[in-house]
Amino acid sequence: MKIKHILESQQFTRPLLNEIFYVANQMDRMLIRGGTQDYNNKIMATLFYEPSTRTRFSFEAAMHRLGGRVISTENAKDFSSGSIGESLEDTINVLNNYTDVIVLRHNEIDGSKRAAKVSQVPIINAGDGKGGQHPTQALLDLYTMYKERGSIEGLKIAFVGDLAHGRTVRSLSYLLGKYERVKLYFIAPPVIQMREDILEYLDYRDIWYDTLDDLHSVISEVDVVYQTRIEKERLGEKVGEYEKFVKEYYIDQNVLERMSKDAIIMHPLPRMKEISPVVDNDPRAAYFRQSRNGILIRMALLSMLFE
Amino acid sequence: MKIKHILESQQFTRPLLNEIFYVANQMDRMLIRGGTQDYNNKIMATLFYEPSTRTRFSFEAAMHRLGGRVISTENAKDFSSGSIGESLEDTINVLNNYTDVIVLRHNEIDGSKRAAKVSQVPIINAGDGKGGQHPTQALLDLYTMYKERGSIEGLKIAFVGDLAHGRTVRSLSYLLGKYERVKLYFIAPPVIQMREDILEYLDYRDIWYDTLDDLHSVISEVDVVYQTRIEKERLGEKVGEYEKFVKEYYIDQNVLERMSKDAIIMHPLPRMKEISPVVDNDPRAAYFRQSRNGILIRMALLSMLFE
Amino acid sequence: MKIKHILESQQFTRPLLNEIFYVANQMDRMLIRGGTQDYNNKIMATLFYEPSTRTRFSFEAAMHRLGGRVISTENAKDFSSGSIGESLEDTINVLNNYTDVIVLRHNEIDGSKRAAKVSQVPIINAGDGKGGQHPTQALLDLYTMYKERGSIEGLKIAFVGDLAHGRTVRSLSYLLGKYERVKLYFIAPPVIQMREDILEYLDYRDIWYDTLDDLHSVISEVDVVYQTRIEKERLGEKVGEYEKFVKEYYIDQNVLERMSKDAIIMHPLPRMKEISPVVDNDPRAAYFRQSRNGILIRMALLSMLFE
Repeated sequence: MKIKHILESQQFTRPLLNEIFYVANQMDRMLIRGGTQDYNNKIMATLFYEPSTRTRFSFEAAMHRLGGRVISTENAKDFSSGSIGESLEDTINVLNNYTDVIVLRHNEIDGSKRAAKVSQVPIINAGDGKGGQHPTQALLDLYTMYKERGSIEGLKIAFVGDLAHGRTVRSLSYLLGKYERVKLYFIAPPVIQMREDILEYLDYRDIWYDTLDDLHSVISEVDVVYQTRIEKERLGEKVGEYEKFVKEYYIDQNVLERMSKDAIIMHPLPRMKEISPVVDNDPRAAYFRQSRNGILIRMALLSMLFE
Repeated sequence: MKIKHILESQQFTRPLLNEIFYVANQMDRMLIRGGTQDYNNKIMATLFYEPSTRTRFSFEAAMHRLGGRVISTENAKDFSSGSIGESLEDTINVLNNYTDVIVLRHNEIDGSKRAAKVSQVPIINAGDGKGGQHPTQALLDLYTMYKERGSIEGLKIAFVGDLAHGRTVRSLSYLLGKYERVKLYFIAPPVIQMREDILEYLDYRDIWYDTLDDLHSVISEVDVVYQTRIEKERLGEKVGEYEKFVKEYYIDQNVLERMSKDAIIMHPLPRMKEISPVVDNDPRAAYFRQSRNGILIRMALLSMLFE
Repeated sequence: MKIKHILESQQFTRPLLNEIFYVANQMDRMLIRGGTQDYNNKIMATLFYEPSTRTRFSFEAAMHRLGGRVISTENAKDFSSGSIGESLEDTINVLNNYTDVIVLRHNEIDGSKRAAKVSQVPIINAGDGKGGQHPTQALLDLYTMYKERGSIEGLKIAFVGDLAHGRTVRSLSYLLGKYERVKLYFIAPPVIQMREDILEYLDYRDIWYDTLDDLHSVISEVDVVYQTRIEKERLGEKVGEYEKFVKEYYIDQNVLERMSKDAIIMHPLPRMKEISPVVDNDPRAAYFRQSRNGILIRMALLSMLFE
C-alpha cells in the first residue's frame, strides 16, 4: 500500500497496520543479517522546533540502518522565530529541494498537516503541540503488543498513570479501537483519568473499557500493563496527593508476582519512579524491547514512504 | 580549472563561472538519475561561528548528494571563546587532520581568508561578518538567472528593497559586472539605496545602471525582479516610513500582471512580507527553484574542489 | 586481543598497547590509500553530557573514515535533567537498541563505568568528570611519542605547566609507568606540581622522575617536551604570579634553539599563550601531528571494538 505522509493515528487502516507490522518484521531479520545500503541515496531531514534528542535519535538510527543519510536540527525555530522568520510552509518548500523525507516536530497542533499540504516529499509527524499526535509512537506501541503477544485481538490491557495528558495512551487508544475483543482498563485517579473524547470514540467503536483507580484489583487478569509517568504539576488541586498516587501505581516485585506469567509491562520511557529497577531483569519487562521496536517501525515506515 | 578555496565573488572569472554552471547542470541530471556515491570517502566539516541552519542544511545536503560525509557544529565558538579558546588558525590546522573540506561561517570579515592562509584543505566561505561576503549565495543567484533565462548577457534586472545592507545583492553585483549589456535597476528609498562602492565598481566596469525609488515605473520592462527584505531596525531616522516602504515594494497579483510573461521573481529567502503567497503559484516565481539551485551549485563547487 | 569497553588507562597492558599502535599504523596507510567503507553498517552515538566539539569531531571523523555512521548530541542532559529525566543506565539501555558503540562524555567520575555495567555495546569514555579519565587522549599522546621517536623505552620526557589539574598528563603518566627506562621531569611551580598519587604510582612502578620548577635546566636534555596550559583560576593564592609563570614556561625560538635536534614538542590543544606561533614551522612541533594521531588511534580502537 502506498503511504504519502504519516500524520495521525486515524489514517491507519487494519490492512495498512498489518502491512507495516509485516515490513517491520522483515526489518528485524534484515538488521540481524547486518543491515542494508539500499537507501544510500536518500536524505532525511529532522526538523525539530522543540528538542527531543530521544525521538530524533530513533529516527536517525532507523534511517542509517537503511543506509540513508541525515541532516538534522533541534533548533528549527531559527527558521521561523522573530523578525528574520519565515512561514512553516516556506521552510517546507525549501527543504523539499534538500531532502527526500521530513521528520517534523512542531510546537503547534496540526503543524504537520500544514506542512503536508505544501510538501512534495513525505512528512512524518514526530509529535506536534501539547495534546497533539505522535503517531509513530502509537505504532511502535501497538507493534510491541503484537510482537510480544502474537496478536492484538482479545488482549486485556491496563493503562496506568496520567491518562489525561499522556499523548501516547490517547493515540494508542485510537489504534486499539480498530481491533476486536480488546478490553481496556484505564487506571488512574479521577483528576488524571482518560478524557471523555477518547471514551466516546471507544463507545462508538463498541470497545469494552472500564475506568477505575485501583491497579491491584485487575493486575492478575491483564495481558499488558502500560505504565506512564505522573507529573506533579499536572495534578492541579490534587497536587498534595502526588506521593500517594506514585506509591499506589508503583510497579515492583510485589506487583510482578501477582501478574500473569505471560503478561508484559510497557512504558513509553523515560521512566522516573514508576517502575522499580528490579523489574528490569524480569522477562516480562518489555520497555527496552519496545524502544528497539521503535527503530523497526520507523525503518518500515521510511521504506514504505520511499516506495 | 582548479579551484583551491571559495572566498569571495571577485575570484570568479568568466571562464570559471561557465565551468561551474556546466558542472551544476551535470549535477542536476545526475540527481535525477539518483545521485552518486563517488565521494563517500570525503568528509566535509561545517564550522559555523554563528548559527545558520538554512545555509548549513544546503551544504550538508549537497555533500550527501555527492555520497560524502559531514561533521557539523553551529557552536564553533566553543573552539575559540573565552579562556579556553584557541586561534582560528589553530582550529583550522586541527580540522585539516579531520576533514577534506571546511565550510566556514565566521563572525569577522576576512575570517575565511585567514583560514585559507593556513589550510591545506579547501575553505569555503559560507558568510563572514556583517557586510562580508557569501560567495556561494551570489553564485547560485547568478546560476538561477542563467538557467531560467538562458544567458546573463542583455538581462534587465531590478533589485528591490534594502540594497544598502543586503550582502546578497552586493556580492551579486560584483559578478554581474563581468557580463555584457546587462542593465541594473536599483530600486529602494534613498536611506537603503545601493552604496557608492558598488556603483563605482559598476562605473569602472562600464555597466549600465539606474537608482530609483519607484518599482512601478520599470516593472513591465525587466527580465528579473530580485526582491529583498526591508528590516525596520536598519531604516535609521526613516523608521517611521517602514510600513509605507513595505507596501510600496510589495509584490502581489497586481505587480505580477504588469510583469513580462517570461520575467522571473527571485528572493534569497527567508521571505517575510515582501511577496504575497498568491505569487508562489505563478510560474514566474523562481525563489524556491533558486533554493534548489543552491544545492546544485554547492555540489558543483565541492566536486571541483575535490578534483 | 578482544576489548569490550574503553574506560581507563589502567586497562591497557603492554601487549594490548602494542596491538593498538600496530592497528593505528595500518589505519594511517589505509587513509593514504583512500579509506574504507568496511564499517558502513555500524552506528556510533556520541552522547556528550558536556559539550566538547573538538573531541566529538575527532571521534566522528574517525568513524566516518571507517565508513561508519554517526548520531550525535552535545545536549545529552536532555535525557536526564530535571523532572523528565531518566537514569544514565536507562539511557544506555535505550541506546543499545539504536547503536553499535557509544562514545560517552559524562559529567560525573565513573559515569562511563556505570554505563559499561549495563551496556551490551561497547562504551568509550571520552572524558568523565573533573579529574576523571580521558583514556583515548592518553593513548594518542603515547602513540605520538612512539611514532615520532620509534619507541617509548628510554625516553626523557618533560611535562610542563599545570600538572596538578591536567587530566591528560595524569592519565599519560599511568601509561608511561608501564615502560622501561623512561625518565619523567615534572616541571611546574609547587602550587600546580604533579600530585602525590601519581608520584606514588611511579615509585611503585620504579619509574625515574624528578619534580622541579625550572624548565631551562633540563630543556637541552629531553626528548619530549609536553607543554600544557596554566589557568589563572587554578592558581589559588598564587594567582598574582600567573603572568610570571606563563612567561617562565613559554616555548619560543629561544627555547627551541636549546632543544635537541630530534626532540619533539607536544601539546594536547587548545593552545593559548604557552607556545609561540613561530614554533609551529619547526619540524619538532608535533602538536598538530598529534591531533591527526587522535584520528588514527580512535579508528584503531573502534575497529578493534567491532571485531
